[in-house]
Amino acid sequence: MNFTFLGTGAGMPAKERNVTSLALGFPEYDGDLWLFDCGEGTQRQILYTPVKLTKLTVIFITHLHGDHLFGLPGILGSRSFHGAESTLQLVGPKGLKEYVETSLRLSGTHLYYPIAINEIETEGKVYENAHFVVTASELDHGIKSYGYRITEKDQKGELLVDKLKEIGIPPGPIYKLIKEQDQVQLPDGTMLETAPFIGEKRKGRIVTILGDTRPCSAAELLARDADMLVHEATFRGDSERLAHDYHHSTSLQAAETARQALAKTLILAHLSSRYQKKEQTALLNEAKAVFPHTYLAHDLWDYQLKLQPRS
Amino acid sequence: MNFTFLGTGAGMPAKERNVTSLALGFPEYDGDLWLFDCGEGTQRQILYTPVKLTKLTVIFITHLHGDHLFGLPGILGSRSFHGAESTLQLVGPKGLKEYVETSLRLSGTHLYYPIAINEIETEGKVYENAHFVVTASELDHGIKSYGYRITEKDQKGELLVDKLKEIGIPPGPIYKLIKEQDQVQLPDGTMLETAPFIGEKRKGRIVTILGDTRPCSAAELLARDADMLVHEATFRGDSERLAHDYHHSTSLQAAETARQALAKTLILAHLSSRYQKKEQTALLNEAKAVFPHTYLAHDLWDYQLKLQPRS
Ligand SMILES: [Zn+2]
Ligand SMILES: [Zn+2]
Repeated sequence: MNFTFLGTGAGMPAKERNVTSLALGFPEYDGDLWLFDCGEGTQRQILYTPVKLTKLTVIFITHLHGDHLFGLPGILGSRSFHGAESTLQLVGPKGLKEYVETSLRLSGTHLYYPIAINEIETEGKVYENAHFVVTASELDHGIKSYGYRITEKDQKGELLVDKLKEIGIPPGPIYKLIKEQDQVQLPDGTMLETAPFIGEKRKGRIVTILGDTRPCSAAELLARDADMLVHEATFRGDSERLAHDYHHSTSLQAAETARQALAKTLILAHLSSRYQKKEQTALLNEAKAVFPHTYLAHDLWDYQLKLQPRS
Repeated sequence: MNFTFLGTGAGMPAKERNVTSLALGFPEYDGDLWLFDCGEGTQRQILYTPVKLTKLTVIFITHLHGDHLFGLPGILGSRSFHGAESTLQLVGPKGLKEYVETSLRLSGTHLYYPIAINEIETEGKVYENAHFVVTASELDHGIKSYGYRITEKDQKGELLVDKLKEIGIPPGPIYKLIKEQDQVQLPDGTMLETAPFIGEKRKGRIVTILGDTRPCSAAELLARDADMLVHEATFRGDSERLAHDYHHSTSLQAAETARQALAKTLILAHLSSRYQKKEQTALLNEAKAVFPHTYLAHDLWDYQLKLQPRS
């Protein structure tokens, strides 16, 4: 699972950081690609990464603030121009559909692929495919803002073919039954307990990607036991009051959420452009004091989250 | 009059050229600033120029294709963030109002200044201030696309104060009358012909900035005697058929329009990203063979058009 941070700034584009977008790629699953948020200029940022718009299957929008949204119509048009024909799924708050349809209609943008828009009406499952379930909960940001929890499905162990051959069961349709069922009746009528013939399973990973938010219990629940939490850190620890007034978090609050949720790794993003390099380091170090396994994202940064080992 | 080319590419952003936007600054008139078109990422391009959003008073949109429009909501929000409070005038095709209002409403963008939107209903005058009149005519681009002709008002000559003093007329309220009227009655009752006491006047400049278009008579009329014509050149001269099919022009056709219109200078912009450096030079040279005084715009290029000399 590859995280490519396309934009890691807040509010307005700056030279150092463009506004928010994060690509999540799955080289382990046919190179499938998702986007989380799509600030203005996202498609130009992509030109500096290996991200391919034709591999894009789902775009999740956390909330409709411009710095998370205004690059969406351009991405939709360019995906079409690049020849994509498969359905693109959009997931986000109510209003997303009107925004997309109005922008495409008035600009005369014709897409050569279908889009399916899922406006979130109730919290819970908002997307599922063969490998993942994604749930959403509402955060605390003044405007409707969602956090997404991506739960990878556990992978069953592999069939231990050599062991089956040893006891005289040759390959055939019965192998499929052995993999799927706890017990299987063999041709001679005896019942086989299948467990000893299945290797170790692989637990799925949990990734939490939050929209802008004040600290809140929903954030903590979404991040519970997550292997990776991507959290906004618009302000430094000393600006808690400012963060509260603007419905944002400080890096310290993000770290506190990661700690409480027993997350494994925290990545901070969505920084205010007021912070120069030195202050950004301070912002990161404040968080690390609370939650040591913290990174600070920067534009075009690529982070790889490995599969869990089989166990 | 300063032309700052913020984006000179067609269709989609490329590394070399962002999508279309042109800033027109008036250092000779209080640093007033206009924008023509506003493709996605325009506000980030501005960070690399001296352009100040707080000086922006008018945005002209030629047409609603995304590569000319999708940067507009971001510009509006950022102008507010930078503290602008004066009214911003928008001029463009029908649909502009719905696009702007929908984008601002759904994204929860609150502007701390008023916007006034003028959707063009009939060709002719679409904007006027103390120094300029702007007229618009419809071009030929499949979607409604306008060209703008900016006519600077002639400046009256200056009062020749020394000459007035020589004949014994001291400074006073009468100077204003002498400047404004053809004849003025002096305190002793005699009539003064004012012409000999007025210096040479300055003729206004004419600038034509066209939206995307096939060659058409409206383009030529808008560019008639223009000191500067900014024209799209999406394709090279050998791709006339392609240009026609996509409702665009070749560099050769742009040059032909400049020649027919007796324009003084031609700047080519809106190039397809298919052309590498060498082909771009060829595209320019083809145009120069027809209209020698031609330039090829590039991103962040600054071109200065001087005041006409007094005569
Ligand atoms: Zn926000
Ligand atoms: Zn166009």
